Amino acid sequence: MKATAKAHTNIALIKYWGKRNEEIILPTNNSLSLTLDGFYTETTVALHEDYTEDHFILDGQPVVGEQYKRVTTFLDLIRKLAGKNIYADVRSINNVPTAAGFASSASGFAALAAAGTKAMGIHLSEQELSRLTRQGSGSACRSIYGGFAEWRMGKENDGSDSYAVPIAPVEHWDLRVAAVILSSTMKKVSSREGMKRTVESSPFFDGWVNSIPKDLEEIKEGIKARNMEKVGSIAEANCLRMHATTLGANPPFTYWHDTTLTVMQTVKQLREQGVPAYFTIDAGPNVKVLYLPENEKTVEKVLREIPGVTDVRLSKSGQGVTYI
Amino acid sequence: MKATAKAHTNIALIKYWGKRNEEIILPTNNSLSLTLDGFYTETTVALHEDYTEDHFILDGQPVVGEQYKRVTTFLDLIRKLAGKNIYADVRSINNVPTAAGFASSASGFAALAAAGTKAMGIHLSEQELSRLTRQGSGSACRSIYGGFAEWRMGKENDGSDSYAVPIAPVEHWDLRVAAVILSSTMKKVSSREGMKRTVESSPFFDGWVNSIPKDLEEIKEGIKARNMEKVGSIAEANCLRMHATTLGANPPFTYWHDTTLTVMQTVKQLREQGVPAYFTIDAGPNVKVLYLPENEKTVEKVLREIPGVTDVRLSKSGQGVTYI
Repeated sequence: MKATAKAHTNIALIKYWGKRNEEIILPTNNSLSLTLDGFYTETTVALHEDYTEDHFILDGQPVVGEQYKRVTTFLDLIRKLAGKNIYADVRSINNVPTAAGFASSASGFAALAAAGTKAMGIHLSEQELSRLTRQGSGSACRSIYGGFAEWRMGKENDGSDSYAVPIAPVEHWDLRVAAVILSSTMKKVSSREGMKRTVESSPFFDGWVNSIPKDLEEIKEGIKARNMEKVGSIAEANCLRMHATTLGANPPFTYWHDTTLTVMQTVKQLREQGVPAYFTIDAGPNVKVLYLPENEKTVEKVLREIPGVTDVRLSKSGQGVTYI
Repeated sequence: MKATAKAHTNIALIKYWGKRNEEIILPTNNSLSLTLDGFYTETTVALHEDYTEDHFILDGQPVVGEQYKRVTTFLDLIRKLAGKNIYADVRSINNVPTAAGFASSASGFAALAAAGTKAMGIHLSEQELSRLTRQGSGSACRSIYGGFAEWRMGKENDGSDSYAVPIAPVEHWDLRVAAVILSSTMKKVSSREGMKRTVESSPFFDGWVNSIPKDLEEIKEGIKARNMEKVGSIAEANCLRMHATTLGANPPFTYWHDTTLTVMQTVKQLREQGVPAYFTIDAGPNVKVLYLPENEKTVEKVLREIPGVTDVRLSKSGQGVTYI
């Protein structure tokens, strides 16, 4: 009747960008991510026979509106699976700073799916849990696993073959990520809206989708061989291609701010000085920098010195969902 | 035996981006530009029976190397047309600051073609002159005309149907352009090289080419109606699409610097405040802003206040090639 789970967020090295089904969240391409130790959500789901609706407390504050609705709609899926008509008290602690531009929905829905199913007495395999989680937030389906995970888009219309699979565990490779937080972080176009507009109107969307299989095959070879140059340059090129699609949307838009460009240039300069560092950017202005443990001090120092950067948060690779 | 011509540079509102033939310069799409009064080249070609090679003096300095070779190769075309084997003294005054990021080759080759043919005693129609000029520098073929001009890409392999035509004269519409010059202007990838790499490796190149006909049809309607919103928003979207293609190239690249983004954001803010202003960007970090005469003071002031902007140069629409 009560369960607690912890899940980490993840950073996509091959981006999820485009849905073929908005309702049950089916993507237009496979994606691949690294789960991050530094940023997580811890969620407790407690069932209450006497409740007439769900309650959702995030970081001590009751949540209402759209965010509440997404949680209760997701709990409906679990209730349906369990065949139980019982409401829940959901309490989450979010250790993913919104300003960092990480999708807190990734760790949030992975933790909710894990705690919710356990509280309802349902036992799911990791694959089944990933498929369920996907329906709450697409990228969350990768956070079920630690280390590197791939979300296979699947072909079926019912989403039965659309879930993440593990690619390499945390222990395989100590690849690290610096989240570079900019002073101006207001996101004007949500990732949901940006993705939709791009799919519907960008002449570059086909080019984006068609470029994925090669990226994916090569980055998996790179991960296997722990080849930083290969993994980093593919991740960087993939992110640039994702952002290129938004420039072709109607109306066009970009998630980049001026300092986003400065950070990109700085990372390139680091490489020119012999430090293997590569950037990736999600649907927002902040930049994430991939680096190796031996370069941590250099990378952090250089990034912190960039004017317009307010914080740099370092993270190792993290574990998948755990029950507490 | 001696002639002087003056030609202005132009700013493309629908970009020339991609060649189908590098040798005689045939493009993969039609383009459309506004000739600019503020930036020009004045060139005198004097034939000398006793010369054994061409001489080229630019702004009082003898020119050697690649730039000299382009000029003398172009003069070969004129010699062939004239059936004369005589070398020339070419003296050019360039009033196109290199730092402004305008293609000085546009005004340069238009003036050279006009002065060169006149000195050789050849009489060409504007269309013939445009076709000849194209072989020196693609975008130069539009500088034959004042006001708005369209370079029709043509279909033939010999380039016989690839030249510019006038769309609307200077008097039609007093549309103005502010060239925003940034402190960091080093161009790392030449437009020639950038175009080539993009055509060869960007998955977005087809999307770019396919998007041109609609842009072109609509911007011509907009020019005819002097509809600033229509012309500006199409030019802006077209430029963003051109720059998106470079992000998909292998290796990817961008011409944008941090301040490029700041200027783009500032122009958007001007619009939100009711000032019709739109940006366009060529193969470099500088930004050109389209505006109307009544907003000149506001636009100039706002642009000059942007940190990282070193100069703002205003220009009206300019005349085509003239003989002096």
